[in-house]
Amino acid sequence: MVTTVEIMGIVIALLAFAYAAWLYSWVKQQPQENQTITRIGGLIQEGARAFLNRQYALLFKCALVIAIIIMLLLPTPAWQSFSIQNVFMAVSYIAGTLFSAFAGKVGIEVATIANGRSAEAAKKGIKPSFMVGFRGGAVMGMAVVGACVFGVCLVYLIFGDPQAVLCFSLGASSLALFAKVGGGIFTKTADIAADLTGKVELGIPEDDPRNPAVIADNVGDNVGDVAGMGADLFDSNVASLAAALVIAAKLDVTSGFNKNVATVFCYAALGLFASILGVMTARIGKHGNPTKALNSSTYVTTGIYAVLTALATVVFGFRWEIWAACVLGLLVGVIIGITTDYFTDDSKSPVHNCAHASHTGPAFTILSGVSYGFLSTLPAMVGTGISTLVSYKLCEGIDPTFSSEYALFGISMAAVGMLSIVGMIVSNDAYGPIVDNARGLAEMGELGDEVIDITDELDSAGNTVKAVTKGFSISAAGLTVIALLGTFMSEVNSAASELGLPLVTEFDVMDPLVFFGMLVGAAIPAVFSAMLMLGVDRNAQRMVEEIHRQFNTIPGLKEGTADPDYNRCIDIAASGAMKELIPAGGVAIISTILTGFIGGVPAIAGFLVGNILSGLLLALFMSNAGGLWDNAKKYVEAGHEGGKGSEAHKAAVVGDTVGDPFKDTAGPSINTQITVVSLIASLLSTLFLTLALFR
Amino acid sequence: MVTTVEIMGIVIALLAFAYAAWLYSWVKQQPQENQTITRIGGLIQEGARAFLNRQYALLFKCALVIAIIIMLLLPTPAWQSFSIQNVFMAVSYIAGTLFSAFAGKVGIEVATIANGRSAEAAKKGIKPSFMVGFRGGAVMGMAVVGACVFGVCLVYLIFGDPQAVLCFSLGASSLALFAKVGGGIFTKTADIAADLTGKVELGIPEDDPRNPAVIADNVGDNVGDVAGMGADLFDSNVASLAAALVIAAKLDVTSGFNKNVATVFCYAALGLFASILGVMTARIGKHGNPTKALNSSTYVTTGIYAVLTALATVVFGFRWEIWAACVLGLLVGVIIGITTDYFTDDSKSPVHNCAHASHTGPAFTILSGVSYGFLSTLPAMVGTGISTLVSYKLCEGIDPTFSSEYALFGISMAAVGMLSIVGMIVSNDAYGPIVDNARGLAEMGELGDEVIDITDELDSAGNTVKAVTKGFSISAAGLTVIALLGTFMSEVNSAASELGLPLVTEFDVMDPLVFFGMLVGAAIPAVFSAMLMLGVDRNAQRMVEEIHRQFNTIPGLKEGTADPDYNRCIDIAASGAMKELIPAGGVAIISTILTGFIGGVPAIAGFLVGNILSGLLLALFMSNAGGLWDNAKKYVEAGHEGGKGSEAHKAAVVGDTVGDPFKDTAGPSINTQITVVSLIASLLSTLFLTLALFR
Repeated sequence: MVTTVEIMGIVIALLAFAYAAWLYSWVKQQPQENQTITRIGGLIQEGARAFLNRQYALLFKCALVIAIIIMLLLPTPAWQSFSIQNVFMAVSYIAGTLFSAFAGKVGIEVATIANGRSAEAAKKGIKPSFMVGFRGGAVMGMAVVGACVFGVCLVYLIFGDPQAVLCFSLGASSLALFAKVGGGIFTKTADIAADLTGKVELGIPEDDPRNPAVIADNVGDNVGDVAGMGADLFDSNVASLAAALVIAAKLDVTSGFNKNVATVFCYAALGLFASILGVMTARIGKHGNPTKALNSSTYVTTGIYAVLTALATVVFGFRWEIWAACVLGLLVGVIIGITTDYFTDDSKSPVHNCAHASHTGPAFTILSGVSYGFLSTLPAMVGTGISTLVSYKLCEGIDPTFSSEYALFGISMAAVGMLSIVGMIVSNDAYGPIVDNARGLAEMGELGDEVIDITDELDSAGNTVKAVTKGFSISAAGLTVIALLGTFMSEVNSAASELGLPLVTEFDVMDPLVFFGMLVGAAIPAVFSAMLMLGVDRNAQRMVEEIHRQFNTIPGLKEGTADPDYNRCIDIAASGAMKELIPAGGVAIISTILTGFIGGVPAIAGFLVGNILSGLLLALFMSNAGGLWDNAKKYVEAGHEGGKGSEAHKAAVVGDTVGDPFKDTAGPSINTQITVVSLIASLLSTLFLTLALFR
Repeated sequence: MVTTVEIMGIVIALLAFAYAAWLYSWVKQQPQENQTITRIGGLIQEGARAFLNRQYALLFKCALVIAIIIMLLLPTPAWQSFSIQNVFMAVSYIAGTLFSAFAGKVGIEVATIANGRSAEAAKKGIKPSFMVGFRGGAVMGMAVVGACVFGVCLVYLIFGDPQAVLCFSLGASSLALFAKVGGGIFTKTADIAADLTGKVELGIPEDDPRNPAVIADNVGDNVGDVAGMGADLFDSNVASLAAALVIAAKLDVTSGFNKNVATVFCYAALGLFASILGVMTARIGKHGNPTKALNSSTYVTTGIYAVLTALATVVFGFRWEIWAACVLGLLVGVIIGITTDYFTDDSKSPVHNCAHASHTGPAFTILSGVSYGFLSTLPAMVGTGISTLVSYKLCEGIDPTFSSEYALFGISMAAVGMLSIVGMIVSNDAYGPIVDNARGLAEMGELGDEVIDITDELDSAGNTVKAVTKGFSISAAGLTVIALLGTFMSEVNSAASELGLPLVTEFDVMDPLVFFGMLVGAAIPAVFSAMLMLGVDRNAQRMVEEIHRQFNTIPGLKEGTADPDYNRCIDIAASGAMKELIPAGGVAIISTILTGFIGGVPAIAGFLVGNILSGLLLALFMSNAGGLWDNAKKYVEAGHEGGKGSEAHKAAVVGDTVGDPFKDTAGPSINTQITVVSLIASLLSTLFLTLALFR
């Protein structure tokens, strides 16, 4: 049964790849005629490739070291008894990085050819331009989820061991750490440096080709928002599957009902299938509304998914409770997305109030944004809480002998459900930076006001959709790490029973080791975010210096008769991003390991809980406050509260600048930080069990 | 034994009152000659009294309602069996509000006479001016801690029931909610409105008497920083004693060692005694350094306390482990204070970096402050974690049969230890606003540059010391609420054993009810802070309108020939503060009660844990970031990075304005929110045990 379903998964993944290939060639066939756009588009593509190569080169060095450590340590320390299992683990880890890297590479390739083509298609109207942007994004969506389903099925098919999937997941997380966090630093470095020197010092427009940082800025959109976002959701998706598989595999063996693993694979594969159908049905009228088109394809996918999984449940005889938990997770995800959207939507009162507060000066823009950002955490926190509670209660009754295992399985399946339509989410998310770039290229290629207006409309739809998907993906990551907590406990007990130690049945909040861990764990996301933001700042300073150097030493640059050295700027952003991400990632990982060796398993459990709680809170706060400031600025620029150039506009720009690293660097990186830490804790549980100072 | 120690406590409290009375009359005897200072000082005093009267009037209405609810519900619902105990509880609650109100009233009275006298004393040099400020603050310190020790001893002496002390503590928290939160809104409303209309619109200096908001601004310093801070620390101190007493009383009865309650009272009384000695020994040379004088008196108090409690431990035969936990708590508190200071000290790199970042514009001031604010949470979080862990481990070995009870007792005694020198802390803290006001009065009374320089120096010392004591008091509140978690469990089990329900032995983080509670609880401090900040903003807008009205309708006001209507501004700030605090407090309380009735005892335990973790994190972040911005602005004003009037200065002012409600409204109010919620949870535990939806 498992094999059947796995093969089904692999077939659907291949289908997704085929569809992605078709979409890719379709996008490539679209006309690209404008000289400037072709040239600038080529530079962006080159820059993005350069960054990716540098990133992957460094990553594979790190990955090799980690793979060797895994081979020495997992599942049992090599000095105790070396087994072929250890090699499997290391191979799975490497596979995780490779599959995710492949998806990121595909996404970048298509995004950097779709942007120019979308700009030029806008000459023929909104519909063709939208289709290029959307199909470009869909290539990424199909590649990410296809690679995820394909990889997880393959690893499980070959090694038949859920721990191998955990290692695969850690591989994906390592890549996400580089792609999402590194990409986040890159994009904001370039953005801030370009703004500071261009708009502020020289008074030239945002996308002026005289600015040496302009290509780096456009590259940043692609490496941060396309490759980084893809790696992040690949990571969450794999982690949710890994968490579910660890528990399901144990239940298959012990509980007498052996279709749990099959359920996980089947539902994941159907999620991908539903996303393919959702992408295929996405349509926009000649004068249609792009936001509506994007959102309705999400709802269509959700509906298809619920029906397909219900059918599968009947056909294969899966548990209805698990189905319910899965669909509940998805519904709660959609609801969280919609409520979070309220706080960043430019037609709702938070954005209006923030824009209005800007009249009184930038301090009030900030205070208002921070306040609404704080408020916006409530729906997602409560929603995540409710889906945890309800999916647990739904599933604990499945089998009284294994009530807590089934309950945890229910939570993990709620996470799988929330992430099931991730193919659709990634498609919509990748659409954003493509049309954003298209807008810039339309300006640089001087395609005329009408075209720019169309690309503007598409861009604004991208921003709105992004807000929905961001709330969604943070909550999904939250639910995933809650499921990973269950995995951690399950791993600890596997290790304990092998070692003949007493089983761990609970982590009591009144246990001082747990409490100690919680306090430390809660501080880490704050420290991690702070290090990233300070890193962006340092890196931007380096780049500003380089831009000044170019303007001072290249004659004719200011007049537009000479070309700037774009590559130096890309180089600085890229190498700086890598330099700044290592210490931040290091602090998160080392504090986990230290806490584990000091306080053992209870301290680590507490650490994970504290980390999840404060991480979720800060990620939601920073992402939403950032989105709100961005839209408040756009709202003012659209002519409200005094419009462009007014004092309110200046204040709103300050808010937007603060919001940029909040929403594009620190906020979304916290997801990755939490996942990495959770996986490391699960994988090292044996060591923490045996070697801790306090036990 | 208990009675002896209680009487000792009462005697020391009376001693503290006597000393406070002597200090008060000493301050009052200091000369006050300058006409303007006398007039303005009188107006400030009147305004502060008006606010206090309004606040207390509203508070007592609320308190009456709560007292009636307590009488109906506690310890057993009146409809089940009405007992005289219920009346005791209600009376204790009312006593808690009254004692705290008394201390606040005394503090305000002395602060509003010491400010002018400190200004005039500066004509004779730094030493006499410092002594007036310090002794004025010490009156508050003695009054707060005296009232606390006196009240707790008295309530326990009369009713002999630790639950009555919990009710007393809830009374203190209710008052703190009004005084600290309401005062926080008041002070920032006035500050922001005065700045916006005065400095920004009219271009008149900060303390110009033509500004209708200027008196409200000065009143704000007193009601927020003196009365509010006093109520906050009164609240924490009583809560720590209540938490310790609940556990100690149970141990006295069950464990066979009956000196635990006596230990609590004895150590608390000796803390007060050490503070008296510390205040008495505070000295400053003729050209001495006021910061050093303030800090060294804190260290002296710490030393005296450690010695006195050690002696008492020998004499009365207390447990050394408990002594060690208590002294450890105090030491960790001092260390946390010092490390936190690093992030706000204007001679250290965070403040310098933030000031330097201001060159690039206000967005970078904000980003840098947020980053360092996040980083600054680490030492306090880890320190609190270590003191929890070590005090638990120290004390769990006292008696193997009662290991977890003694361990919890150890944690609560670490909190008592951390708060033992609170008399000294309050003295130093109250010194700040007195000399801050003195500075303003010296300017308004035109006492000359030399005098203003002296008051400036004293003011700056006040700010530095405030940073230390703030980190200290947030951590102490954190440790107290951890101890209250133990109290909650103990209360739940008392109720469970009475009702014949199974005892609760742990709160498992893997229990979905606990997890649900944690997620909701973690969101509440963010929502609470947001509501307060939005409230300040709304209230400031109202006041700005009033100021505009006065300038438009009072002829001669702008020219300085007519007086503004100061009272209207005070009135608006006061009534607005009360209006804005009710919904914020309501959300915190109602969400606690809802969570309890939905998820029962496990959900509430989770709620408290989530609340503590995110509350501590946000309180530290906001207080420290606010302090850092304040000092970065002062650093620039001292001539660095371009000095006053430069672009960097403008940016630093934006940071300071954002920081004001962070550090003076939201940040410190979170303490109170956590304590209130913890006490309500403990007191309602029986109801949650019997009436919850999920059990």
